[in-house]
Amino acid sequence: MSTTIELGPESSSVAKGKAPLIGAVPVAKGKVGWKKGIAIVDFLLRLGAIGSALAATATMGTSDEILPFFTQFFQFEASYDDLPTFQFFVIAMAIVSGYLVLSLPFSIVGIVRPNVVGPRLLLLILDTVALALANSSAAAAAAIVYLAHNGNSNTNWLAICQQFGDFCQQASGAVVGSFIAVVIFMVLIVLSAFALRRH
Amino acid sequence: MSTTIELGPESSSVAKGKAPLIGAVPVAKGKVGWKKGIAIVDFLLRLGAIGSALAATATMGTSDEILPFFTQFFQFEASYDDLPTFQFFVIAMAIVSGYLVLSLPFSIVGIVRPNVVGPRLLLLILDTVALALANSSAAAAAAIVYLAHNGNSNTNWLAICQQFGDFCQQASGAVVGSFIAVVIFMVLIVLSAFALRRH
Repeated sequence: MSTTIELGPESSSVAKGKAPLIGAVPVAKGKVGWKKGIAIVDFLLRLGAIGSALAATATMGTSDEILPFFTQFFQFEASYDDLPTFQFFVIAMAIVSGYLVLSLPFSIVGIVRPNVVGPRLLLLILDTVALALANSSAAAAAAIVYLAHNGNSNTNWLAICQQFGDFCQQASGAVVGSFIAVVIFMVLIVLSAFALRRH
Repeated sequence: MSTTIELGPESSSVAKGKAPLIGAVPVAKGKVGWKKGIAIVDFLLRLGAIGSALAATATMGTSDEILPFFTQFFQFEASYDDLPTFQFFVIAMAIVSGYLVLSLPFSIVGIVRPNVVGPRLLLLILDTVALALANSSAAAAAAIVYLAHNGNSNTNWLAICQQFGDFCQQASGAVVGSFIAVVIFMVLIVLSAFALRRH
C-alpha cells in the first residue's frame, strides 16, 4: 500500500504531461479525483467480494454431517458432494474467488491511473462473466437448499433438514454469502460503467 | 440496413451541429458511425432476447402433463406450479420479457443519437439487474430439472422424468431458452460499456 501512495502523484503528473502527446482530451482536475474515488470504491468492494466468496466456498466445502447413529452396514452422512449442485457451487465460487484475487492488481492500476480505459474495460467484461458464474451457482444451490428445507409433496421429495440440520444451515449460509458476492458484482459493473463514460 | 445507411450522414450531422451547444467534445465521423453500429446491434440483440425470454416463459407456463391412468381418488398430473422454483421461473422470465419490450425505445434513442450517454447508462444498469434476475431463475430451474431427470440417491429424491417425460422436456426447453437470454444480456452489457467509453 505504501508504494502505491508514493507512486500516486508522480505517475499522475507524468500522465498529465504526456496526455497531449497521445491525443487524449485534457481533463479537469475534479473529474480525475472523481474517477480515482470510484476506483478506490471498486478496490474496497472487491476486497468485500473476496471475503464473501471465500467464506461461501469454505462454508459449503466443509459442510459435512455424520449422524450419531448407524446400522451395521450404513452410516448416515451428508456432505456437499452428495449433491452435484453443491459440488458445482464449490467449484464455481472457488473460480470466482480466484478471479477476484487476480483482479486486484488491475483495480490498483485504476486507482493509480484513473484515465486509462483498457484495464477498466477488461475488468468490466470479466466481472460480467464472473457475475453470471457466481449467480448461477448461488441460484442453483438456493433452489436445492429450499428443497432440502421444505421438500415437495407433489414429487415426493422429502425434506432432509430435519435429519441433517447442521448441514442445511451451513449450505444456507454459503448461499447467502454467494448472493452477497453477486450483489457486489452488480455494483462493480455499474461503477465501472460510470467510470468509463465520457466526461 | 439500407435505411440505416441513408439515415446515417443526416442524423450524425445533426448531432455534430448540436454538439458544441451542449458542451460535448466534437467527434470524428468514424466514431459516430461505429457507435451507431453498436446501437443497431444492441437493438437486434434485444429483439432476440425478447424472443427467447418469451419462448421460455410460454414453454414453462404451459408445461402440464396428465398421465393417461388414474385411481379413484387421484389423477396423476404434473404442472409447473407443482414446483415453487418453476413458478419463480415463470414470474421472473415474464418480468424480464416485459422489461426487454420496454427497453426497446431507449435502444432506438441510442441508434438515433449515438452520443447521448443517459439512456445508455440507464439501460446498462437495468440490464445488469435483468441479467441477475434471468440468471437466477434459469439456474434455479436448471438445478430442479437436473434433479427431475437424474434424481439423487443420497437424499432419496427420485427422478420423475420417467413418468412425466413431456413435462420434463418442456421444462428443459424453457431453461435452454432462458440461458440464451442470459448470454444475450451479457453481450448487451459489454456492448454498452464499449459504447460508453471515452473516444
